[in-house]
Amino acid sequence: MDVEQFRKAGYQAIDRICDYYYSLQERPVVPRVEPGYLRLLVPPGPPEKGEDFQIVADDYQKIILPGLTHWQHPSFFAFFPAGCTFEGMLADLYSTSVCNPGFNWSASPACTELEAIVMDWAAQLLGLSPAFFNSSGVGGGVIQSTASDSALAAIVAARSRYQRVHPGVKLEDLVIYTTTQTHSLGTKAGIVLGLRVRHLQVWSEDRYALRGATLRTALEEDVNLGRKPFFLIATVGTTSSGAIDNLQEIGEILKDHPLLWLHVDAAWAGVALSCPEYRDRCYLNEINAIVTSFGTSFHKWGLTNLDTCTLWVRDRKLLTDALEVTPPFLRSKHSDPGSVINYRNWHLALGRRFRAVKLWFVLRSFGVEGFQNYIRRSVQLNEYFADLVRGSDLLELVTETSLALSVFRLNPRRSKSMKDLNELNRLFYDRISSRDDILLTQTVLNGVACIRFAVGAYRTEKKHIDQAFQLLLKEGRLAIKEWKGTEENHLMAYIPWNVWVIPYRA
Amino acid sequence: MDVEQFRKAGYQAIDRICDYYYSLQERPVVPRVEPGYLRLLVPPGPPEKGEDFQIVADDYQKIILPGLTHWQHPSFFAFFPAGCTFEGMLADLYSTSVCNPGFNWSASPACTELEAIVMDWAAQLLGLSPAFFNSSGVGGGVIQSTASDSALAAIVAARSRYQRVHPGVKLEDLVIYTTTQTHSLGTKAGIVLGLRVRHLQVWSEDRYALRGATLRTALEEDVNLGRKPFFLIATVGTTSSGAIDNLQEIGEILKDHPLLWLHVDAAWAGVALSCPEYRDRCYLNEINAIVTSFGTSFHKWGLTNLDTCTLWVRDRKLLTDALEVTPPFLRSKHSDPGSVINYRNWHLALGRRFRAVKLWFVLRSFGVEGFQNYIRRSVQLNEYFADLVRGSDLLELVTETSLALSVFRLNPRRSKSMKDLNELNRLFYDRISSRDDILLTQTVLNGVACIRFAVGAYRTEKKHIDQAFQLLLKEGRLAIKEWKGTEENHLMAYIPWNVWVIPYRA
Repeated sequence: MDVEQFRKAGYQAIDRICDYYYSLQERPVVPRVEPGYLRLLVPPGPPEKGEDFQIVADDYQKIILPGLTHWQHPSFFAFFPAGCTFEGMLADLYSTSVCNPGFNWSASPACTELEAIVMDWAAQLLGLSPAFFNSSGVGGGVIQSTASDSALAAIVAARSRYQRVHPGVKLEDLVIYTTTQTHSLGTKAGIVLGLRVRHLQVWSEDRYALRGATLRTALEEDVNLGRKPFFLIATVGTTSSGAIDNLQEIGEILKDHPLLWLHVDAAWAGVALSCPEYRDRCYLNEINAIVTSFGTSFHKWGLTNLDTCTLWVRDRKLLTDALEVTPPFLRSKHSDPGSVINYRNWHLALGRRFRAVKLWFVLRSFGVEGFQNYIRRSVQLNEYFADLVRGSDLLELVTETSLALSVFRLNPRRSKSMKDLNELNRLFYDRISSRDDILLTQTVLNGVACIRFAVGAYRTEKKHIDQAFQLLLKEGRLAIKEWKGTEENHLMAYIPWNVWVIPYRA
Repeated sequence: MDVEQFRKAGYQAIDRICDYYYSLQERPVVPRVEPGYLRLLVPPGPPEKGEDFQIVADDYQKIILPGLTHWQHPSFFAFFPAGCTFEGMLADLYSTSVCNPGFNWSASPACTELEAIVMDWAAQLLGLSPAFFNSSGVGGGVIQSTASDSALAAIVAARSRYQRVHPGVKLEDLVIYTTTQTHSLGTKAGIVLGLRVRHLQVWSEDRYALRGATLRTALEEDVNLGRKPFFLIATVGTTSSGAIDNLQEIGEILKDHPLLWLHVDAAWAGVALSCPEYRDRCYLNEINAIVTSFGTSFHKWGLTNLDTCTLWVRDRKLLTDALEVTPPFLRSKHSDPGSVINYRNWHLALGRRFRAVKLWFVLRSFGVEGFQNYIRRSVQLNEYFADLVRGSDLLELVTETSLALSVFRLNPRRSKSMKDLNELNRLFYDRISSRDDILLTQTVLNGVACIRFAVGAYRTEKKHIDQAFQLLLKEGRLAIKEWKGTEENHLMAYIPWNVWVIPYRA
């Protein structure tokens, strides 16, 4: 394809994306395809000779688009939103057009320079302390691919710090703490690094937040057993219910455990710190005072296209001491940590896309005010939904709303003790998830089967909330009917609910 | 920005990318900027109110583009090429426009379906055994972000397999083998996972390839010490010199070490397997017969935009057994490993971009023939360069060419024993790297300072090779002159060269 052919195909792509967004509401949210559908539609191998690009582009429209789940659909309330704006798309397009992996400052200076700056902008947007700014020369921020990668990088750095202080420590003795509500990235990090993970219990009366006493007891138990606590993942906005661990109480415990690295995973809710009115409930003061690392994903609720996961550390040397593999005598004037940032030493991999430009385009185009308005609108729409639930005699909230997330269930008799409520809700969710005009995900909170309602798709309006609520009432009534019909047999159909699921959080 | 504003801004972006490629040859390869240049040009924080997008887009042209290293420039011979085609850009644009993280089949079916198919296509392109195809139901392929991520996922799976067979094994006893020429991802994986890495020696007479005898001796030594060999990274096409480890001999050793997981990292050179004439020298038969995992990055020499690193495994269960965090009783009909692929269990993170569409667009648009033509053209251009070096009385090849990579140095007296040849070459490289009209990277091969010449930028033609060669001659002569002038003082300026550098390989 030459430049002029690209111009033509590029215009067409832009036009087709416009068409996509004009038609989005009329599309099903969930594709009507079965596993293996695509193999039936494409040849078994690549073509010998190149094909005309128009055929390729047309096939994308014909066989790929109808197989996608439309996360940008206004009736998408599943997982968490996947940030996507026209500004982000355009930034991605500019970025991919100059394809260059800016792993070092010198590999492509503007990539590093812009990332260092835009991470400082984002820190200001969220109210983070200047200690975390790249301009501080001590702390700093970096864009990672995912929250999992952020946590892995932080854990590796923490382990390294612990080993420097206690050179003989056995890996088998190290302990990572999470709660039972922490995203699966905690468990997975333990698997990946071969380290012990202890899931601390949380309770419904605390709205599933980690309390200081629980942490203190666990630390004491483990220290008595000769184990070495070195990492704690606290969450601001868990995936299941938006729980916010009690950072104030955790801070008190940390005073006695200076080598316990506190990583706050605010992958979803962190962007809410942009609004002053949510800062106290998200413990901004404590974040600024006590965390060693803090991460949030702008590619979730932050209007920015995948992948834009921001990670800040109080001391960049903790990362580079652990992850730098260039011997010191090779550091040139442009690779010395004191002179420029080489982001390859801030994460696990080497190569990286030029992602800062996405966040830059979004922050400039929306401004602080526009960004806040979007966050507030999501929270208000969720509160509107929650009020509908509160006023319903079929549905109930299982725990209080958290920002733009509600967790509810079907409870027609308003009886918490109803024995088979979980089974009824399984039927209810099965009905909802067999529809293609809405998408929600389920979860389990300490044994209680429930359904999540996550607001944040950019085009969601009040009318979509109304539609969703009416649809839930309808399916709820049908589920009750179905339940009564099968009540005699339901024990045979029983599938245990008291298990944890892993809702989305990239 | 509404849909019509996006159309306008999108057309403009396409036009500007066209302008960029029309003007690319006139641009410097290396930006004329100093560290910190960008902070002087932008405000210290995000704007309070959103800015007009035109201003943002114009700023990208004015202050970002001039700060980029132009990896697509025809005179870019540094690191390895960063694959970038118009087809890949358009695919990325379509992908970002529907922003959805297809971590599970059901999260967005077409993402998984297309990836499973296109990985089979790519396997066919490279001549891989059907055992690695996703259609086999046993082996399979997945797109990872980087070669580092591929190696990490494979090592975690290998460690998990080893622990299943030897439940009591101490992490401290496990050994990962690489060579002294293996990409830094090997060392970094050891750091990240807290595992021992042993760098096996290679020799210039073997063209820096790992030999069987070296491996056998090391394994015996370690086993005698009670250590547990469990992972070997062999490279097809090292970063420094394109060395290809002797997989035939390694295969013999593996017969006695069935639990040693052989991962072949062919991040750069793997795509050359698309051409039958390079398959023997790249050990395709051995790859098909003996490797447990094999990876190559289409985002290097494979015409596909970042990030498209392909990884194949002979048995997908080795990955999912290690990385799956959903308890078995939660597997639904669409998450059961036997039914559909859930790629989140094939890598470290959860979320992922829709990357398969890039590879699909590229393979269809180029066809097998077009892809092969590009690879062959790169090799031929490199051979043309190497012939110029061979005929020169100033430059010499340090080792034989490998596919599209030459490693050379300045050696005016054709004296291998010349004491300060390394220092002369440092001067030489300093001169080259202070120019902005060409970019090359340096390396060190067993103590010998040399310069790499990596061909593969899509727009590089014979005339750019000629220009590069003339420029090298000119700078070589000036370096010799400078050297003679400073000969008396050169010992004071000496910086040790017998260290390893980490050239780019994402």
